[in-house]
Amino acid sequence: MTFVQTITGTPADPAALTPAAARAVFRTGLSTPTSGWCAGATQANLIAVPREYAYDLLLFTQRNAQACPVLDVTEPGDPRTSLAEGADLRTDLPAYRVYKHGEFVAETTDATEYWRDDLVAFLIGCSFTFEQGLLDAGIPVRHLSSGKNVPMYRTNRLCRPAGRIQGPLVVSMRAIPAAQVATAVQITSRYPRMHGAPVHVGDPAGLGIAALDQPDYGDAPITCDGDVPVFWACGVTPQAAAVAAKLPFAISHAPGQMLITDVADTNWSV
Amino acid sequence: MTFVQTITGTPADPAALTPAAARAVFRTGLSTPTSGWCAGATQANLIAVPREYAYDLLLFTQRNAQACPVLDVTEPGDPRTSLAEGADLRTDLPAYRVYKHGEFVAETTDATEYWRDDLVAFLIGCSFTFEQGLLDAGIPVRHLSSGKNVPMYRTNRLCRPAGRIQGPLVVSMRAIPAAQVATAVQITSRYPRMHGAPVHVGDPAGLGIAALDQPDYGDAPITCDGDVPVFWACGVTPQAAAVAAKLPFAISHAPGQMLITDVADTNWSV
Repeated sequence: MTFVQTITGTPADPAALTPAAARAVFRTGLSTPTSGWCAGATQANLIAVPREYAYDLLLFTQRNAQACPVLDVTEPGDPRTSLAEGADLRTDLPAYRVYKHGEFVAETTDATEYWRDDLVAFLIGCSFTFEQGLLDAGIPVRHLSSGKNVPMYRTNRLCRPAGRIQGPLVVSMRAIPAAQVATAVQITSRYPRMHGAPVHVGDPAGLGIAALDQPDYGDAPITCDGDVPVFWACGVTPQAAAVAAKLPFAISHAPGQMLITDVADTNWSV
Repeated sequence: MTFVQTITGTPADPAALTPAAARAVFRTGLSTPTSGWCAGATQANLIAVPREYAYDLLLFTQRNAQACPVLDVTEPGDPRTSLAEGADLRTDLPAYRVYKHGEFVAETTDATEYWRDDLVAFLIGCSFTFEQGLLDAGIPVRHLSSGKNVPMYRTNRLCRPAGRIQGPLVVSMRAIPAAQVATAVQITSRYPRMHGAPVHVGDPAGLGIAALDQPDYGDAPITCDGDVPVFWACGVTPQAAAVAAKLPFAISHAPGQMLITDVADTNWSV
């Protein structure tokens, strides 16, 4: 099993890049969390499974829509998506994780050698998409300002199963100043296709999270006095379910390292 | 091929019935449009197809989500749904249509004899659900006040295909006084899972509808001077697609004769 060396030399102003330019950078091998990249562009989670499991996974996303808002589903084997002109899903994300029978076998910046003709890729809404809205409202996004990945946690809430696929709800956490929690709820409520409103505000124990400083994915959180932990459903949920179900094969994005699409984030606002 | 005789003796005040009571009435054989029944209850379209076609249809609903907002998908052969306690999907809708290889072979009030062990039922949001909101805002719903079924039309807009399933967008039409069109847009926008905002306001020719008084499904419209035709995506769309794709077998609700669920319509408001 190999881990990717994260290249720290990111572009000077990743927020100003176009999605196509960002994808070109990632195609050359840069592995980095994409939070804060390409302001205004929709970001998406990736989970690709064999066609044999695609119905179960599609039904899983329908039954757990807050965690798994589907933005696109590809044709079997086809690495293209309607969300990003000219993108190749095998190379244009910063990093991938490859799983066999529920075992994590590789992290790679290029999934071409692992791709299969029967893979169906699901692209799922990501909460990074609404972070610009939070920033615009003057709400600090602490993992962004500190150059970290967002912390993500497996919870004790089980998703509604679908066929052979089941697993826990995964959440992302942002520490929000108490006086701004209500505004954060209002803003993110306008993005139901990007996980929408928080699923939980306050005590992590209510989600079965024992140690907030030890996330299951991403980096440990940065919190300030007076912050409240606020939890949103996370698009890593279907990835965790594919692993828990021990699917014979799956490729996902590396947590926090998303597909940056051409679609404007305002497209999803209601 | 048989058509069902519509029983005109409906309950004195169908709006006041509970969903369970309405389903019990339909189980005894009453066939009637359900618009206006069980105020506050979510209504749903039904399309049931063999498991072999369920992935294509589920993908079709994902790719055409405004017309096909999925509320529930059943296990193969199982006539129950999480949306309605104790309901039997084979008997508890007012009427059904049965299709073989794209041919309409029967309309019936009891689909039990046609049910199959491999049928997967899709329950899809219905615009009847937001009509109460229109009424509450003082907007007339003319088919309701005149005791008719809503008019529905096949349009010249093609849905995005999925596998073997493709077909035209079907719309429902409500004639709205010009001064109230904006309010109708605002109210229905709050129900994205019930088709949301209109897809078209004004000239029917823009949707390829040649004769407004000759709908493809439902009753001819009632319009008044100063009304504007307003068109919403309709849950008959997947039914039309299953027919156009000549699926070997499908069962749907009869247009306008929906499943009345136990779920409050306010549950879908954003």
